[in-house]
Amino acid sequence: MPEFNKVVIFGVGLIGGSFALALKAAGEVGEVVGFGRSPGSLKQALALGVIDRAGINPAHELGDADLVLLATPVGQMGDIMARIVPYLGPETVVTDGGSTKGNVVAAAYRAFGERIRQFVPAHPIAGAENSGPGAARADLYRERKVILTPLPENPILNVAKVRSAWEWCGARIYELTPAEHDQVFAAVSHLPHLLSYALVHDLARRDNREQFFTFAASGFRDFTRIAASHPEMWRDICLANQPALLEELDRYRQQLDEIREALAQGDGPQLEAIFAHAREARRAWAGDGE
Amino acid sequence: MPEFNKVVIFGVGLIGGSFALALKAAGEVGEVVGFGRSPGSLKQALALGVIDRAGINPAHELGDADLVLLATPVGQMGDIMARIVPYLGPETVVTDGGSTKGNVVAAAYRAFGERIRQFVPAHPIAGAENSGPGAARADLYRERKVILTPLPENPILNVAKVRSAWEWCGARIYELTPAEHDQVFAAVSHLPHLLSYALVHDLARRDNREQFFTFAASGFRDFTRIAASHPEMWRDICLANQPALLEELDRYRQQLDEIREALAQGDGPQLEAIFAHAREARRAWAGDGE
Repeated sequence: MPEFNKVVIFGVGLIGGSFALALKAAGEVGEVVGFGRSPGSLKQALALGVIDRAGINPAHELGDADLVLLATPVGQMGDIMARIVPYLGPETVVTDGGSTKGNVVAAAYRAFGERIRQFVPAHPIAGAENSGPGAARADLYRERKVILTPLPENPILNVAKVRSAWEWCGARIYELTPAEHDQVFAAVSHLPHLLSYALVHDLARRDNREQFFTFAASGFRDFTRIAASHPEMWRDICLANQPALLEELDRYRQQLDEIREALAQGDGPQLEAIFAHAREARRAWAGDGE
Repeated sequence: MPEFNKVVIFGVGLIGGSFALALKAAGEVGEVVGFGRSPGSLKQALALGVIDRAGINPAHELGDADLVLLATPVGQMGDIMARIVPYLGPETVVTDGGSTKGNVVAAAYRAFGERIRQFVPAHPIAGAENSGPGAARADLYRERKVILTPLPENPILNVAKVRSAWEWCGARIYELTPAEHDQVFAAVSHLPHLLSYALVHDLARRDNREQFFTFAASGFRDFTRIAASHPEMWRDICLANQPALLEELDRYRQQLDEIREALAQGDGPQLEAIFAHAREARRAWAGDGE
């Protein structure tokens, strides 16, 4: 007996498709029904066996669904939630795969209202070079991290259902509050992207940019690798996580002010203490692998 | 006939030792005399054939030297210049291998006085994991960049002599003014190190640092790789290039202010324009290799 009789997925691309394939590979889902905006993607997902059926009308598919995964871009989730909430069965649990949580949770409170107990937010940390149903893989989440950010209204059993689904996908499960989640990713991912983009942008708009790029070497290469990331995607992530990112950016600007002061004063011991502290932490984090 | 009858090197480690070995391999030096603060290094350099003789008294070695290379840490160069200038032959040309130029040039003007025409500053862009005479290699400079930053007082022939020596080492030669040099390296090397150190330092001093490091991923890894660099070395580089680095840091802070404003306003098109511009420049720079 599979753990889930029926799973409904909105968005049948890399994230949603891999979730479906992983549950199927584990033998833990009876039927996967997919919804998507693009008929071509739905057709491809069907042909590849990622989903068993393309849904036509959410009103007919949600009453008996055990689990619903929202795997669309974060900006579309609010609308989808509003459309599906009236049709959810009393035991149906909804989760999502969005990479920011504060804004998704805010949209969920608006859309779910008194049924907010049925929405358990989550963020699977898995990306790949490619997207679309053709990129979906049953092992995408194996040994990857999935962060649940349960709400105070979630009954333990609803959280357990989502946790269990991701565990069947092979993921390692963590729990944070939505605010902790957004702060952590602002600091370790979104802010570094901003900082790297800022440096390259500033060099590239100077008259003597050729000079800079001629002498840039391996340190620059590493530091700016993420400045080649996708502009629209990162615009959306920055806007989606705006409050936490502003907070982290302001904190970082203060940190830079401190370092500027030490440099301006020629305070060698203070600079060295900052650098040594950072180095120690970086090396402890990276382990012996680097 | 070798191009240089006698070359004198202060500092027989990686930089100076590799210069000597390369000129020897090219058959372009008659005799290499080495000076150093550590008797052990001089002995090792002799044993390895990096130098032909360890010098005892600069007063006896400089009058007939064609070329003198200062390959010590930048902080020691002013003292060495003051010690050697009185003994230089009229045709002797002195150059250096320091990674900052404004401070070395300022020291040279003080020490050389009217003989400043004999000092041609340079910066070979070559580092390696190791240091000391044992790390010196004849091919260290092959296809590497060497930047000459000639002074207005340098006769063309003196610049040509230094250029020629580095060409015999297999290097590609560039010319910048000392100020250009320091600005370029502040922007593409020293500032990124500061920024990377700053991020890791700031995360590592928080109470919930474990949370951050648990979810840091490959973008963070690349961005912070240079935060594992040597603290004393980078303290010295930052202080040596303080004026240019302060200027670049302030410019960067302004750039961050602009981005903060766009983020605070939720100005998606502006964020996307900055990211897209950076991405284009980064990709053009890295070529197809990445």
